[in-house]
Amino acid sequence: MKSLLKTSLPTKSLLVLLLLASTALAADPLPSWNDTAPKKAIVAFVERVTKEGSHAYVPAPERIATFDNDGTLWSEQPIYFPQAFTFDRIRHLAPQHPEWREKQPFKAVIGGDMKTVLAADERALLELEVATHAGMTTEEYAQLVRDWSVKAKHPRTGRLYTEMVYQPMIELLDYLRANGFKTFIVSGGDAEFMRPWTEKVYGIPPEQVVGSSMKTRFELRNGKPVMVHLPGIDFIDDSTGKPLAINEHIGRRPIAACGNSDGDLQMLQWTTAGTGARFALLVHHTDASREWAYDRTSPIGRLDKALDEAHAKGWTVVDMKNDWKVVYPFEKK
Amino acid sequence: MKSLLKTSLPTKSLLVLLLLASTALAADPLPSWNDTAPKKAIVAFVERVTKEGSHAYVPAPERIATFDNDGTLWSEQPIYFPQAFTFDRIRHLAPQHPEWREKQPFKAVIGGDMKTVLAADERALLELEVATHAGMTTEEYAQLVRDWSVKAKHPRTGRLYTEMVYQPMIELLDYLRANGFKTFIVSGGDAEFMRPWTEKVYGIPPEQVVGSSMKTRFELRNGKPVMVHLPGIDFIDDSTGKPLAINEHIGRRPIAACGNSDGDLQMLQWTTAGTGARFALLVHHTDASREWAYDRTSPIGRLDKALDEAHAKGWTVVDMKNDWKVVYPFEKK
Repeated sequence: MKSLLKTSLPTKSLLVLLLLASTALAADPLPSWNDTAPKKAIVAFVERVTKEGSHAYVPAPERIATFDNDGTLWSEQPIYFPQAFTFDRIRHLAPQHPEWREKQPFKAVIGGDMKTVLAADERALLELEVATHAGMTTEEYAQLVRDWSVKAKHPRTGRLYTEMVYQPMIELLDYLRANGFKTFIVSGGDAEFMRPWTEKVYGIPPEQVVGSSMKTRFELRNGKPVMVHLPGIDFIDDSTGKPLAINEHIGRRPIAACGNSDGDLQMLQWTTAGTGARFALLVHHTDASREWAYDRTSPIGRLDKALDEAHAKGWTVVDMKNDWKVVYPFEKK
Repeated sequence: MKSLLKTSLPTKSLLVLLLLASTALAADPLPSWNDTAPKKAIVAFVERVTKEGSHAYVPAPERIATFDNDGTLWSEQPIYFPQAFTFDRIRHLAPQHPEWREKQPFKAVIGGDMKTVLAADERALLELEVATHAGMTTEEYAQLVRDWSVKAKHPRTGRLYTEMVYQPMIELLDYLRANGFKTFIVSGGDAEFMRPWTEKVYGIPPEQVVGSSMKTRFELRNGKPVMVHLPGIDFIDDSTGKPLAINEHIGRRPIAACGNSDGDLQMLQWTTAGTGARFALLVHHTDASREWAYDRTSPIGRLDKALDEAHAKGWTVVDMKNDWKVVYPFEKK
């Protein structure tokens, strides 16, 4: 009896584990999605490409999925969150820069006049970036981002910006990874702004974050190697920049891509033009009460041409209001 | 008895599995390395950073190891292998380009006059790249590389270039990965030249290959998205370019880096300047009979300043002749 017990104990643990595993598999992997077309399209696609022996089967290493960030994984209103970081930084540094009080767009940022700020041209906005980040080492910059990400609050919700991520999209990331996908961010935002927090918030490690970049120089300071940001943008990871960045960083064509604006159109075109099963998704911001509602004429996250192409080509368009049970994780309670 | 057998069978399988696993762990993971200092340094480093609770423990996601390619993972004589690809391409295209017969350095490439070719300046060599690869889509280029990688033979060994990889370094890659490391190539070679074969040869997937890049444009050709190489180099991943590329592509500082030339010096400086346990290795080409012997004055893979710094800082220097039992996998038989 004793020996029977001894041998059967591991077997029992194994059975319990198997039971737990099968329960986990049976549970709905996308609980925050309504049972509408987008959820069905996601599940159908994942089942097709992961079913061994099926015509559409894709080996795990080729299961690359790319996600835009601003407006696709987290909110982007009333201003892009990376801009909120820069603007917070300017307000923080303002006391040491009296000359900013009369100089636009600094003056508008300091005074909170977002209308003037957002009307400024790209060059003026670039000046803000340069003023706050040039001359800084990559490590100093990363530390500022880390501090900001656990402290700065959104003006409307009073929540951390990193809490204003989309619960349904986080479930989608998890679901894809549970099915052997490698998930990447491919965003117009600065990669160095995202990497300090994407692993914790999205489960996406720094090396799978592709983004825009500042010009940077390597140098020895008192024999210690540092990398220093220079005044200037090196690469803008938006529109045609997205497939180019995918080519440069990932080196394979994604089989799934998710975005929310015209800046994601070329990434979706590139993804869906490959052979075999492909999946393209656009988050359509239709929920003015839980989030924001905007599309064809919005200066932020404009969704116009990409929406037409999505309809024409049968890409999945998420109607945030109708397709998502909750928007943010903090609504779940 | 019957029920005892039933319950004990999975237990037996489990024991067999455990036994196999422990045997695998006990086996020498670096059989092609002599039991000299480099092997001991590698094993000591890996054991330190993977031992939970130890002062030097590094969580798996932060175990990033970067490897130069030419001269570190495969040979680079008598010319860098990516150049061999370009030169083969020029010879292949020569019949359609009668103007090349009298134009240097094309003439020298076609005639096999490597001395003249290697004496040409960078601009002239760039012209060769442009002549062979500009105007081509990324997919056409990848197909040419794939074809070349399974066909082109090295002039001295008569082996495929992709067979002239270093068996001890492949064991090192495997050993690191078995210990939770993520292995990256960070090479001066063109990333698009490496990605079609690195997964098969080194177990390194395309998204973990960082390299130089050609200027590339995204465009729609008859509605079909393509990426086309333009005449020009976008980024040279060498010297100070290596830590910059690590910052841009990986976004974390490696804890281990391996190279073989002065072009790897800054990568090794950046890697070892981080806090905690660090590992830096240089392959020193000392084996004229099994491979090549060259260092401080070689036009290819010059190892001069980095060798001095390695000695001064106690980095691991592999004496190929004394530290490696075999160089190439085909010697094993």
